[in-house]
Amino acid sequence: MELFFLGTGAGVPAKLRNVTAIALKLLEERGTIWLFDCGEATQHQILHTSIKPSRIENIFITHLHGDHLYGLPGLLASRSFQGGESKVTVYGPPGLKSYVETSLSVSGTYLRYPLDIVEINEGVLFEDDQFIVEARKLEHGIPSYGFRIVEKDRPGTLLVDKLQEAGIKPGPIYKKIKEGESVTLEDGTTLAADDFVGPKQKGRVVTILGDTRMCEAAQNLANEADLLVHEATFANGEEALAFDYYHSTTSQAAEIALRANVKKLCITHISSRYDRQAAEGLLAESCRIFPDTEIAADFKSISIPR
Amino acid sequence: MELFFLGTGAGVPAKLRNVTAIALKLLEERGTIWLFDCGEATQHQILHTSIKPSRIENIFITHLHGDHLYGLPGLLASRSFQGGESKVTVYGPPGLKSYVETSLSVSGTYLRYPLDIVEINEGVLFEDDQFIVEARKLEHGIPSYGFRIVEKDRPGTLLVDKLQEAGIKPGPIYKKIKEGESVTLEDGTTLAADDFVGPKQKGRVVTILGDTRMCEAAQNLANEADLLVHEATFANGEEALAFDYYHSTTSQAAEIALRANVKKLCITHISSRYDRQAAEGLLAESCRIFPDTEIAADFKSISIPR
Ligand SMILES: [Zn+2]
Ligand SMILES: [Zn+2]
Repeated sequence: MELFFLGTGAGVPAKLRNVTAIALKLLEERGTIWLFDCGEATQHQILHTSIKPSRIENIFITHLHGDHLYGLPGLLASRSFQGGESKVTVYGPPGLKSYVETSLSVSGTYLRYPLDIVEINEGVLFEDDQFIVEARKLEHGIPSYGFRIVEKDRPGTLLVDKLQEAGIKPGPIYKKIKEGESVTLEDGTTLAADDFVGPKQKGRVVTILGDTRMCEAAQNLANEADLLVHEATFANGEEALAFDYYHSTTSQAAEIALRANVKKLCITHISSRYDRQAAEGLLAESCRIFPDTEIAADFKSISIPR
Repeated sequence: MELFFLGTGAGVPAKLRNVTAIALKLLEERGTIWLFDCGEATQHQILHTSIKPSRIENIFITHLHGDHLYGLPGLLASRSFQGGESKVTVYGPPGLKSYVETSLSVSGTYLRYPLDIVEINEGVLFEDDQFIVEARKLEHGIPSYGFRIVEKDRPGTLLVDKLQEAGIKPGPIYKKIKEGESVTLEDGTTLAADDFVGPKQKGRVVTILGDTRMCEAAQNLANEADLLVHEATFANGEEALAFDYYHSTTSQAAEIALRANVKKLCITHISSRYDRQAAEGLLAESCRIFPDTEIAADFKSISIPR
């Protein structure tokens, strides 16, 4: 589980930072990649990485501003051209479907894989054995969502050696115990499931937010997360400007991280008015409030350990 | 008058060549730039040039395939964000309007300059004192156009010294002579306009074609042009493949240049299957038939002398 930043700028592309896109690499977990936002030239950024578009399974669009959206038709089309065959689901605010369908149909683009476009509301967007993704609305003028990606706890591994020592042969009993059921044998002995199953593996939580003012929904989505990705379009002290433009400052992002008690914060959506050196200043501002902050950069990755 | 290649690849972006966009720089002539096609990340390519998006006056889209179109909404939006105020007209096949309007409205993009979208047919698209642009349909499965950009001949400069030698004072007579009228003075002398006006300056002709099979419309558009830009998606020998995919080979592009008797040919829309070295081979194939060929490359410019 690794977060890989493909674009970390704000509003318009610049030499140093492309517009927003973040890949959540779930290669070990499920052999796929999830994409969060898809600004123009995301597919171009991908050309310089080891990411295979055919691996992209889900795409979550936080909001429909062009700097988070305009790379989507090109990415979808190229994925088909390059032989991608597995289904892709794109989640995003209402309007997404009309945008994608118009872009593909006007350009005569036929995708060789199934594409599902889901226009979202608050609530659970995705759930399977491994993951659950929940969305909440943030504050950004137009509907902008934050996503809480929760990896489910994994049951502990079955202690086969210990079962065999107790004289239990592989069979239906193993399955029951693995599922946490205690079992009473024919001779009256009871096997407590806990004695034969290792500790369960706690799942990880990653919270990725769209553009937003500092808000309570952000804090709720980030609660106790292993990693929070929060925008910081403005420097500390620019709170009035941030409010007017529906964005956040470095200090506000850090404050949310602190209140939500996350393990790590990564600030992104950095305006091109800040050069490499100024970005160091932004990082320092956030660290003053929340020490475990990193600042995103194009092609930077952050791994999320268990 | 200079042609500047922003993207010279085919179908999908690659590291060596971005998807199609060509800037016709008319800075000396009218202080503006015309764009031909606008594949994804054209605005990113522009970041590495001296081109100012605010200078872009007309955008001509040859056809609506994504690799010629998907950079348009982002370019239009960024031009506004960066303070562009002058009007932009976009010309292209039907469907263009719905694509641009959907992209801008869904993303809540408001442009601070007037945008005019003209869905085209064959014929004259643009005419003013300086230029006339004519479009003809090519052969590409979906409607794909070629454009003949004709610079109008400029009247010769007024030979003021010679008029003064003849004792004629500046006034309405100067204007008449400049416009080619002969003038009879009060004393009965007749001044022949030709004697007092220098030779007229011949305008230049540039032909820029969208994706196409080898076709007669291409040849007509290119007739006696100073520069022809013709696609060459495939190598010589791949004519059957080119036909099936509605594209041309190097030799076919050269054949059109030869028949149309152009001064110079530039082949572009080079497939990513050809690396730098293979591209040399493509150029050689074309030169065998039409020696004055160049092969386009991203960030290459070709000036068009009078
Ligand atoms: Zn944004
Ligand atoms: Zn093309």
